[in-house]
Amino acid sequence: MMVADLHDPALAARLQHLIDHKTKPLGALGRIEALALQIGLVLGSEAPRLEQPQLVVFAADHGLAARGVSAYPDDVTWQMVENFLAGGAAVSVLARQHGLALTVVDCGVRHDFAPRPGLLQRKVAPGTADALAGPAMTRAQCAQALQVGRDVVRSFPGNALLLGEMGIGNTSAAALLLARLTGSALADCVGAGTGLDAAGIERKRAILAQVLERHAAAREPLDALAAFGGFEIAAMAGAVLEAASQRRVVVVDGFITGAAVLVARALAPQVLQRCVFTHRSGERGHELMLRHLGPDAGTPARPLLDLDLRLGEGSGAALAWPLLVSACALLREMASFEAAGVSQAG
Amino acid sequence: MMVADLHDPALAARLQHLIDHKTKPLGALGRIEALALQIGLVLGSEAPRLEQPQLVVFAADHGLAARGVSAYPDDVTWQMVENFLAGGAAVSVLARQHGLALTVVDCGVRHDFAPRPGLLQRKVAPGTADALAGPAMTRAQCAQALQVGRDVVRSFPGNALLLGEMGIGNTSAAALLLARLTGSALADCVGAGTGLDAAGIERKRAILAQVLERHAAAREPLDALAAFGGFEIAAMAGAVLEAASQRRVVVVDGFITGAAVLVARALAPQVLQRCVFTHRSGERGHELMLRHLGPDAGTPARPLLDLDLRLGEGSGAALAWPLLVSACALLREMASFEAAGVSQAG
Repeated sequence: MMVADLHDPALAARLQHLIDHKTKPLGALGRIEALALQIGLVLGSEAPRLEQPQLVVFAADHGLAARGVSAYPDDVTWQMVENFLAGGAAVSVLARQHGLALTVVDCGVRHDFAPRPGLLQRKVAPGTADALAGPAMTRAQCAQALQVGRDVVRSFPGNALLLGEMGIGNTSAAALLLARLTGSALADCVGAGTGLDAAGIERKRAILAQVLERHAAAREPLDALAAFGGFEIAAMAGAVLEAASQRRVVVVDGFITGAAVLVARALAPQVLQRCVFTHRSGERGHELMLRHLGPDAGTPARPLLDLDLRLGEGSGAALAWPLLVSACALLREMASFEAAGVSQAG
Repeated sequence: MMVADLHDPALAARLQHLIDHKTKPLGALGRIEALALQIGLVLGSEAPRLEQPQLVVFAADHGLAARGVSAYPDDVTWQMVENFLAGGAAVSVLARQHGLALTVVDCGVRHDFAPRPGLLQRKVAPGTADALAGPAMTRAQCAQALQVGRDVVRSFPGNALLLGEMGIGNTSAAALLLARLTGSALADCVGAGTGLDAAGIERKRAILAQVLERHAAAREPLDALAAFGGFEIAAMAGAVLEAASQRRVVVVDGFITGAAVLVARALAPQVLQRCVFTHRSGERGHELMLRHLGPDAGTPARPLLDLDLRLGEGSGAALAWPLLVSACALLREMASFEAAGVSQAG
């Protein structure tokens, strides 16, 4: 995969010098300073500006949902797509608030949508197959879904991609990918999703243990992705790879989008340099996932927000978006001590 | 003090019903839901809208600064006021980004400013007196500073007040107020401020211990406020009381603004119902302060952000502001399950 290393010590030093000479005590803007540095490096600029940000919600159904791994019926996937397009979902409201272009990509919802603005119909199949009976997708379908994500990003302007998703059953696919790609115990990866009770979680865990066992040989990233699904996760992995290869900022939402980043990272480790993790989800397994998505072994990724969100849709990415805009604005617009005539520390 | 109890179980129940029937799993927007509920209660509305938000930076100098309790010379207070007004400070940049009206109130800076838009000249005195030699302010000055805060808020439109401050030496005053008003050990209240090293903190702590001892009798809130200062903290306490009595949302920044809330809470406990705590500061003592500002004994206040900020100026309040706007927008604009035709959990 062609994702360049952003290693540029000269630019990093210039950015850090700018940040350190702004009119504030050294380091006083905390993690906003690190965010400004990161975005400056991704965009290759000492005066970075986020332009035409795209919030893309990838939607698909999961064959495994029929096994009862979710608190919601799988009709909710298409119903929520309609809600996104009608402007009534959380992510719709937040996209309006922040001026984010919102697009829904149907990668494989089990429903025929009427065409309309804001909806891209890129259905690979009407839902994945039941992962307990066989692989969720064929390798050809998996490649097609990855390409959907790549093509969608390529078709959009701008230098920032905010990832969102919708797919009843997709915390199951994400948990399976987390367990397989990181070698973690499945029990640590499985949570309540949209709101299972303790018995429901126990049942989900038992089903996922069977799925994991069923695909014991699927150890390579793309084998695991094909085995567990879903189309929206594969498309997001493709989107991450494409955005990263173009040096766009990749704004990661929660547990499901994180699973897509895990896959993309396995294929091209440098994608992590472009990723901004926006929140620590209430979903069990997300903390563990963030430990595996850290910049170095042993350093967990530190998301910007910790607000017990567990909605998906890109809602966490959208809620955190103004912090990225702030980081750039502070870097561009704050005065230096010298320019403002402010005395420095004695 | 006339700050009404917002206790309104009927409105709270209606708000919670609205939140619970939005198209999302129950509770999936986490603390944003609690924020929406709080703002709805403060503004007395099921469709709250934050209007004409005012970011007010209260500035003043501290006599104690001459004892060397800060890493910066005290000229930085007036120099930073100039920087706020010129648009080059962090809070200036963030106010522009978010459309916040920014006003600087000179409550007692040791400098003569040329009049200009955005600056209110309400100087009580050119800096407080040295708190080690006597009270930082007289009781008359303290009352005047409180009134400055009240009058400023009364003169502004809108239903939200974002608090900011500037005053070299004011982490010392805040630490002293925290220690005295909560009975905490001084060592737990004193931190690096703008960036003291370990020896500097040790020196600051030794000086503050003497100040605390010097004013051992100043135990009532207004006595402590007069003893330790400063004018900007007193003005903010007045501003909090006035904003709360008008049912405005009070958006609290970090350690210094938190000290003003401690004073206001001691005078009128119901002010806390209106306060949104925006971030957990990197300043030692802030975590302890948040434990004392919780809604109930034993429940610490949970700020929205945890980004190692320690700048003051209202920068944390401004960074978190979009989350308050989001909470209101989600409450007003998200569709219900019924309206959107989305199936509920089975």
